[in-house]
Amino acid sequence: MEFDSIIVRFSGEIGIKSEWTRRAYEKQVLQNLKQTLKFADLKPDAIERIRGRIYLKTQKPNETAKALGKIFGITSVSPAKVTSSEFSDITKIALEMVKEIIKENTTFVVRSHRSGTHPYTSMDLCRDLGEKILEAYEQFDLKVDLFNPQVTVNVEVRDQQAYVYVQTLQGAKGFPVGTQAKIIGLLSGGIDSPVACWLTMKRGCPTIPVFVDNFPFTDEKTKQKAIETARILKQWSAGHIRKMYIVPNGENMKNILQKTPRRFTCLFCKRLMYLISENIAELENALGIVTGEAIGEQASQTLQNLYVIDEAAKAYPIHRPLLGFDKLEIEAFAKKIGTYEVSIVKTESCSAVPSMPSTMAKLSAIKDAEKELDMYAMAKTAVQAAQIIEI
Amino acid sequence: MEFDSIIVRFSGEIGIKSEWTRRAYEKQVLQNLKQTLKFADLKPDAIERIRGRIYLKTQKPNETAKALGKIFGITSVSPAKVTSSEFSDITKIALEMVKEIIKENTTFVVRSHRSGTHPYTSMDLCRDLGEKILEAYEQFDLKVDLFNPQVTVNVEVRDQQAYVYVQTLQGAKGFPVGTQAKIIGLLSGGIDSPVACWLTMKRGCPTIPVFVDNFPFTDEKTKQKAIETARILKQWSAGHIRKMYIVPNGENMKNILQKTPRRFTCLFCKRLMYLISENIAELENALGIVTGEAIGEQASQTLQNLYVIDEAAKAYPIHRPLLGFDKLEIEAFAKKIGTYEVSIVKTESCSAVPSMPSTMAKLSAIKDAEKELDMYAMAKTAVQAAQIIEI
Repeated sequence: MEFDSIIVRFSGEIGIKSEWTRRAYEKQVLQNLKQTLKFADLKPDAIERIRGRIYLKTQKPNETAKALGKIFGITSVSPAKVTSSEFSDITKIALEMVKEIIKENTTFVVRSHRSGTHPYTSMDLCRDLGEKILEAYEQFDLKVDLFNPQVTVNVEVRDQQAYVYVQTLQGAKGFPVGTQAKIIGLLSGGIDSPVACWLTMKRGCPTIPVFVDNFPFTDEKTKQKAIETARILKQWSAGHIRKMYIVPNGENMKNILQKTPRRFTCLFCKRLMYLISENIAELENALGIVTGEAIGEQASQTLQNLYVIDEAAKAYPIHRPLLGFDKLEIEAFAKKIGTYEVSIVKTESCSAVPSMPSTMAKLSAIKDAEKELDMYAMAKTAVQAAQIIEI
Repeated sequence: MEFDSIIVRFSGEIGIKSEWTRRAYEKQVLQNLKQTLKFADLKPDAIERIRGRIYLKTQKPNETAKALGKIFGITSVSPAKVTSSEFSDITKIALEMVKEIIKENTTFVVRSHRSGTHPYTSMDLCRDLGEKILEAYEQFDLKVDLFNPQVTVNVEVRDQQAYVYVQTLQGAKGFPVGTQAKIIGLLSGGIDSPVACWLTMKRGCPTIPVFVDNFPFTDEKTKQKAIETARILKQWSAGHIRKMYIVPNGENMKNILQKTPRRFTCLFCKRLMYLISENIAELENALGIVTGEAIGEQASQTLQNLYVIDEAAKAYPIHRPLLGFDKLEIEAFAKKIGTYEVSIVKTESCSAVPSMPSTMAKLSAIKDAEKELDMYAMAKTAVQAAQIIEI
C-alpha cells in the first residue's frame, strides 16, 4: 500500500515544558522540519500542526520519513494513509494495510485516538474494526492480543479525517536545534568529537564546527576527515550549520615545540585550542565550547590534565558531554550519527605528540613553562588567518 | 549445580592501555574487589590475577557475582565450576551443568580457551566435548549451532585446572575508582545528580558527595534523600566514598532573597553552590566539580544560564556528564544505579524558586546585582559550618 501521510510526534521532554516554551519549541521543530525537507527536495503537499503533533501529506512517504529521522525534537513518526472518518472508509484502508503484513496465526490489536464528534466512541472503533479484520481474514486464523501483539493497527480520527497506520519509527528525540544559544564545536577528525557536537545539537544548540589544523604535524587527510564529519553533522542541523572554521596552527605548534618541555606538548596544544575557540566564540556570539574529551580515555584526558587545560580558558564554559562514556558507547553513537566510517579512516598520527606525554602535570609547572609563549597573541593570529568554508 | 569459582574479566578499555597503566589499573580493580567483598562479608577462599583476568574461589558464588556487578573496571563475570584439566573431568562437570538448562531441541555450542600443555588442542576439546554432550542427551535431540546457540558451554583450561561455565553476567565496565583524582559531587536529592556522580566514579574518580542544604527553603526530607543517594553511590565506590559534606546555606539564601532581584535567585544559588564546592575541593585536594546539569532540562539550565553560572567558579572545572542526555536516558541510569526510587520520593519544592525564573540572564546584570553580596565570604562561612557525616 502506498502511504500518503506522515504523523510526527514531538519529544516527550517538549510536552512537559511550560505552555509558552512548549509552543516555541514546537514551532522550532516545524521550522526545522520545513527547512530539512526543502534541502532534501521533499516538499510536502500540506503541513498541519495540531494538538502536539504534525501531520504531513506527501507523495514520497518513505524518503520523507527517513529525512525526519534526523530532526531533533521528534520522538517518532508513522507513515499513514488518510481517509474520511466514516467507519466504512477506515475499515477499507485498515483491511488493505493489514493484508500485506499478516500470516497464519498473526496476533494483532486495534488502537485508536479520536477528537471531534463521531457516531462511534474510540472503544467502539477498536472493537468493531477488530471484528472486521477477524472476519475478513478468517482463513489466517488471526488472534487478538492486547498486551504483546505482532501487529498494531492504529487509527487517529481528527474531526472529518482519519489516519490509519501500522508502523512507528523512532525519531532523533532531544530538543530542536535553534532553541539554545550557539556553541563552538572542536572537531579533530577522530571518533569522539563529532559525537560530542551531535549531543549539544541534540539539546538544541547550533554547533559551529572548528578544526584547528596542526599541519605539517598532522596530515591533509586529517583535515579532510574533520570537514567530512562536519558535513555529516550538518545533515542533523536543519540548516543551522552552514560553515566551518579551519584554523592554521602549525606555526604555533613549532613555537610550542621549540620553547616548552616535550612532555607538555599536548597540554599546550589543548590550552591553545581552547583559547582559539574562545576567540571564535566571541566572533560568533556563542556561549560555550564543546569538546569530545572523556575522563581517562587518553593520556591528555586524566582528571588532572583536564584541570590543567581547563584553566587556560575561563571566558566560556568548556562542555564535555562524553565525560562519563566508555569508548564502545561513543562508537555506538558515531555509527548511529554516520560519522564512524569517516572517523576510522587511517591518517598519519600527529608527529608533535611526545613519546612520554605527561598525565599528571602540575598547573604551576605549566604556567611557568608557558611564560616563554604569548598564548593570547598566538590564538589571535591563528584565528585571524582562519579560513571559513561553506560545508 | 553449585558453582565454586568466579571468572572476572577486566573492562576492554583497560586492555588497550599501555603496559604500565594497564597493570596499575588491574591492580586497582583487584584492590577494589577485595575491599568490596570484605565489606559485604564475602571474603573469597582464594584470589588469583592471571593474564588479564581474576579467578576467585568462593563458597558463595551467587552473592559474590552480584557484589562484583558494582565494581567499575570489570566488564563481565562468570560463575564457574573448577576441575582438573583431564578431559574426562571436564566432560563430567560439563554434562552435569548442561543437564540443568537443556530442553528438547536446545541448540548449543562449546567454546574453549587453553593455556599450558595438554594432550588436546582447543579445537579437539570443543569437538569432543560437543560429541559427548550430543551422545549423553540423545533423547533431547540437541543441535549444535555455531552462530546463534541458546546455550554456550565454555571451558577455560589454565595449566592443570579447568573452569567450566555456561553463564556470563555483564559488569559495571569503566575504570576502577581510585585511578583518577578526586572530584566533588554536588547531590541535590533529585534524579540527575547521583547519575552524574556515578558516571565520574565509573571513569575512576573518587567522588565526594556534597549537599548544600537550603533549609528552611527546602525541607528536611530533601536532605535525607541526598544522604540516601550518597549511601547508594557508596556501594559502587569500593570504599573510596566514606563521608559526605552537608553545608548549611539557608542564611545565605535569605541574604540572596533580600538583596537581589527575584528572577535571578536560582542563578545566585547555583553560583554560590559552585563557590562552596570550590572551597571543599581545595580542602579535599579534589581537581574538579561534577553536577547533574543537562542543557535545557530546566529553566536554570539553558546554555545561556550555564554560561552565567559557570563564570562564578573558575578555580576548578565544572564537569557535567549529563549535558547531552534526555530525561528518560537519565532515569534509566538512575534505575540501574539504584537511586531512582529514593530520588522520586515527594518533597516540598524549594520555596526560594521564583515563579518566573530568568532563562536568558545577561552576565553583566548578574555581576551588577551580585555587588550587593559578598559571595566569597558567604561560601567560606557556609563551608566552615559544614557537617561532615559518615555514610
